[in-house]
Amino acid sequence: MFRDILRHVMEPLLFQQNKKKSLHPSLLTDIAKKRTAIKSAIDPFRCVAEELELVERNLMRSIRSSEQILTDISAHLILGGGKRIRPMVTLLAFKVFGGKKIEDIVDIATAIELIHTATLLHDDILDGAEIRRGKESAYKKFGLKATLIAGDFLFIKAFEFAGKFDATVVQWTADACTHLTEGEILQGFFNRKLEVTLEDYLEIVKRKTASLFETGAKVGAYLAGANPSFVEEMGTYALNLGIAFQIIDDVLDVVGHKELLGKPVGMDLRDGNPSLPIILAIREGQSGVAEAFQSDHLTEKMIRTAIETIGRGSAIAKARNFSRSYAEMAFKPVEKLPPSLYRNGLKTLVQLITERDF
Amino acid sequence: MFRDILRHVMEPLLFQQNKKKSLHPSLLTDIAKKRTAIKSAIDPFRCVAEELELVERNLMRSIRSSEQILTDISAHLILGGGKRIRPMVTLLAFKVFGGKKIEDIVDIATAIELIHTATLLHDDILDGAEIRRGKESAYKKFGLKATLIAGDFLFIKAFEFAGKFDATVVQWTADACTHLTEGEILQGFFNRKLEVTLEDYLEIVKRKTASLFETGAKVGAYLAGANPSFVEEMGTYALNLGIAFQIIDDVLDVVGHKELLGKPVGMDLRDGNPSLPIILAIREGQSGVAEAFQSDHLTEKMIRTAIETIGRGSAIAKARNFSRSYAEMAFKPVEKLPPSLYRNGLKTLVQLITERDF
Repeated sequence: MFRDILRHVMEPLLFQQNKKKSLHPSLLTDIAKKRTAIKSAIDPFRCVAEELELVERNLMRSIRSSEQILTDISAHLILGGGKRIRPMVTLLAFKVFGGKKIEDIVDIATAIELIHTATLLHDDILDGAEIRRGKESAYKKFGLKATLIAGDFLFIKAFEFAGKFDATVVQWTADACTHLTEGEILQGFFNRKLEVTLEDYLEIVKRKTASLFETGAKVGAYLAGANPSFVEEMGTYALNLGIAFQIIDDVLDVVGHKELLGKPVGMDLRDGNPSLPIILAIREGQSGVAEAFQSDHLTEKMIRTAIETIGRGSAIAKARNFSRSYAEMAFKPVEKLPPSLYRNGLKTLVQLITERDF
Repeated sequence: MFRDILRHVMEPLLFQQNKKKSLHPSLLTDIAKKRTAIKSAIDPFRCVAEELELVERNLMRSIRSSEQILTDISAHLILGGGKRIRPMVTLLAFKVFGGKKIEDIVDIATAIELIHTATLLHDDILDGAEIRRGKESAYKKFGLKATLIAGDFLFIKAFEFAGKFDATVVQWTADACTHLTEGEILQGFFNRKLEVTLEDYLEIVKRKTASLFETGAKVGAYLAGANPSFVEEMGTYALNLGIAFQIIDDVLDVVGHKELLGKPVGMDLRDGNPSLPIILAIREGQSGVAEAFQSDHLTEKMIRTAIETIGRGSAIAKARNFSRSYAEMAFKPVEKLPPSLYRNGLKTLVQLITERDF
């Protein structure tokens, strides 16, 4: 079973061999360097490999339905190579405080991954996305109706796992979900709108992405019996990690490689989503980018040109700096913990996330 | 506040004065007769009026969001004249066993109404419905994206209320929700499909409608401390009540009045949903109905003609008989309870539901 974990989780994050053929040699050198660096550090996946395997089993069990299509749609996405970052953060935050009751933490980590997966299904409907994780999106493959219902189904399964816990855990999980929906609304509000500010962007990212990271880490520490101030510290760690993670997602949507990302670049521009590089490029006065961002009649050529323009300016470097700042803010609370394998795992995870190519 | 309850709950069920103008005089006489009959019976609304008021307050509080549109969409539907039948069943099942902890039962009744409301929002997307509860559907008014997210938001709020309870309540509630999604899939599977049988129909209705009734009643009895066999009996009551309720919904979609229903008749035919009158009419050999049911290019005239054809045959009488059978099955478990105001309320509710005109 450990091989399964490797296949689903490790391999995609540590760069897929079989997808490298079409990449440029200099990129391959970069990847090789990073891989060496990562291998020499503590691998956060290995720290919680057994627990992650239990999460996988939970996920597989929970998506069984008498209606085969609900299982098929759920499996399509869940087996589709998710990175399992959110469960990993939750598990590490539990283990770093010496948490022992593995079954509990595995259940809540499963709930958090299910919530994330449910939102991906609904997101693909909202964005009309055709590709997700390197293959046809569920929305494209199974249609709007079944995909919408499958998203509800996964939310319900998450509730089944999370509803077992005490009022605090239930409230935190529900709050994270509420923030997710509010983040979606806020992102929709600023769709193709030039007036979007950096503050608006951060508010969207906190709610849409970082909130679920934060909750997972807080629940992990809380269930391990950490004292309240450490629970908050772990929340701070994961909130900042989540923001850094999203910024890199945005950056890769401009400078990433289709083969590694599993989807074409330029999706944010195509969908009119205010990503950090787009906002920064517009602030730099790149009028072509502003025009493309506002347009709902974009051609492939317009997208390509705008993406190249963003890539040539300083927006990407600035965005990476932002990401680094948040990564540093994520490091701080971890530094306060006594040295341990899991503390190092939490630190390496920040590094992995901010230096990833997909 | 009691006036608010009357406005939201009692008036629509006891026939709205202001909507009668355009109805035929003979219908008005019918309505007057029924109203007298209902008034002389125990009014199930009055039995739990105070608790229903608390459910209303919970609903209002729970839909507050920092994103105004989520509150607006939720309020659009929640203030739009729902009958609150599900909370009522839950509350009556609690009170009939002498349940005392009002706050708890009000919370779970709120969760159940929120789940129902969430599914209505998503249903309107699935059916492309333009009208709901006498006014523009949220889907039509606010668009697909915001409505989809608002449905998720209401599911999450339901989870917040239901997640406080013990593992049994959480599991029953989650199971009901899972059945809802499976019922939706099953209904979609038989969309415009002639091969749909009565058994298929019952399976859809049990999952899509009756399951949430059943869970509400079981949770009500369980939280009141009823013994397990009575908990099951209350489940049987509500399951059969839910089926009877849905059959009458289907009947009214053929013979109802737009002014009372708050939506045009013939919606099931328009959407290709296999309703009981449609299935029975097809079994009677009404080929025009079969043709209309299968067609995805229906004109208004074709719908009108098919609806008139169903109305002239024996399908409606047969469907009402089915509904009566389920109403009788709902009565039986209630007969086993010692006489009380609430027992009578449960019985009157069956009568109200099967004799309603909207």
